[in-house]
Amino acid sequence: MANDKLILVTNDDGVDAPGVKKLTEIAQKFGKVLVVCPDGPRSGQSHAVTVNVPLRKKLILSEENIQIYSSNGTPVDCVKLALHNLLDVKPDLILSGINHGANASVNVFYSGTMAAALEGCMLNIPSLGFSTFEENYSYNLDIISSDIEKVIQRVIDNGLPHRTCLNVNFPYNYDPTKGLKVCRMGDAFWKEEFEERFDSHNTPYYWLKGTFTPIEEGEGTDIWAIKNGYAPIVPIMPDITAHHSIDELTQIFKI
Amino acid sequence: MANDKLILVTNDDGVDAPGVKKLTEIAQKFGKVLVVCPDGPRSGQSHAVTVNVPLRKKLILSEENIQIYSSNGTPVDCVKLALHNLLDVKPDLILSGINHGANASVNVFYSGTMAAALEGCMLNIPSLGFSTFEENYSYNLDIISSDIEKVIQRVIDNGLPHRTCLNVNFPYNYDPTKGLKVCRMGDAFWKEEFEERFDSHNTPYYWLKGTFTPIEEGEGTDIWAIKNGYAPIVPIMPDITAHHSIDELTQIFKI
Repeated sequence: MANDKLILVTNDDGVDAPGVKKLTEIAQKFGKVLVVCPDGPRSGQSHAVTVNVPLRKKLILSEENIQIYSSNGTPVDCVKLALHNLLDVKPDLILSGINHGANASVNVFYSGTMAAALEGCMLNIPSLGFSTFEENYSYNLDIISSDIEKVIQRVIDNGLPHRTCLNVNFPYNYDPTKGLKVCRMGDAFWKEEFEERFDSHNTPYYWLKGTFTPIEEGEGTDIWAIKNGYAPIVPIMPDITAHHSIDELTQIFKI
Repeated sequence: MANDKLILVTNDDGVDAPGVKKLTEIAQKFGKVLVVCPDGPRSGQSHAVTVNVPLRKKLILSEENIQIYSSNGTPVDCVKLALHNLLDVKPDLILSGINHGANASVNVFYSGTMAAALEGCMLNIPSLGFSTFEENYSYNLDIISSDIEKVIQRVIDNGLPHRTCLNVNFPYNYDPTKGLKVCRMGDAFWKEEFEERFDSHNTPYYWLKGTFTPIEEGEGTDIWAIKNGYAPIVPIMPDITAHHSIDELTQIFKI
């Protein structure tokens, strides 16, 4: 295995999360690694960028083949900081994750992990996001490591289609004999409620709670794959045009 | 004009921005209005949701046909709070904006304004986001008001295609005789740099600066429309699957 790549690793659970440590360990098999992660959890940060406070970076580790930085920014800020401040050349690959929590289906819109991958994709850098449904930090990530390594190797060998990055999710209790499956996003929404509490001044405050509710879970969707124990690989792109609606809307908006 | 609708209005510039005041004024022509906005600017917040601090709401105005709330959350939090805490029934329409700043092309991924519309779309509520390239709060929004009113009326009369919401942008110096044009997202990226400064302890900090860089700006794209003075209406959807890549990737990831 050629290990001559330059790889940027990031995540949204923060620099100390086991997921990014495991992903860094895997990345090092392929070459030199720069890790730039938020200094704490940034779950649900989506494609947010920091515009009202300045960004800071903090060097945590510097060795010959690995450097680790943390930042006060979001995952997308970390990618921008790496590409436009820390690196002189484009990395060969961006790896985001391993996220401790599901990013299949519409969760991709809320996910900082996947936003970081999408940001790399916009800049034509092959970018991969990895997530496990297992949120518990004590989950044994070795179970999914060889599949992650396989995905990275295939992408290095074959490249990725133009303007495409990958969203890879591993279900609860993943059994590696099931394996990876290329899928499309299944449609879904979050059925939400708020838990109302009252502070010591008797003023209400709210915690968001929600239930993931599939709409489309037929074969070929990532929701189906997850339910059947597979690890879906969904190719995603920085275009959300509803192309199928253009003709109908053109009629509706005629003079 | 029937004015029997229930309309939710939100934005990402905060409850005090002129844009949301103008949009509220327009919305009131169509029925009862609930405004729920962030308590200050939340530009670049994308689809972020608040998970680590509780949400608060503050009633600002309550009259027979209009209620205004602010919240400490993001635009998407505001939509969730409105739908799952403040309203007993689904609104007929969600209007987001008028954003003081461009949300055409890939800016849709960074935009809190458009994330709010997309969140409504996920819940099958007709949702429209409006933005003007004119960032200056003193810009005369009356110039674009009648076109916004027209878009809302057409959507009320015709509905929207399934799982589709609209991203409407008005260019600098918009001339209403040019008019609206249904478009697809033009592809682009942000060419970024960071301005490095040093604090009083001589520690560096960074301000993000960037240049919007079009990749695809041919006729039919929103980038083309903007350049030619039109106001592009781009239908967007909560699916970023790169469908055209599925076959190629299926080959690449065969055993």
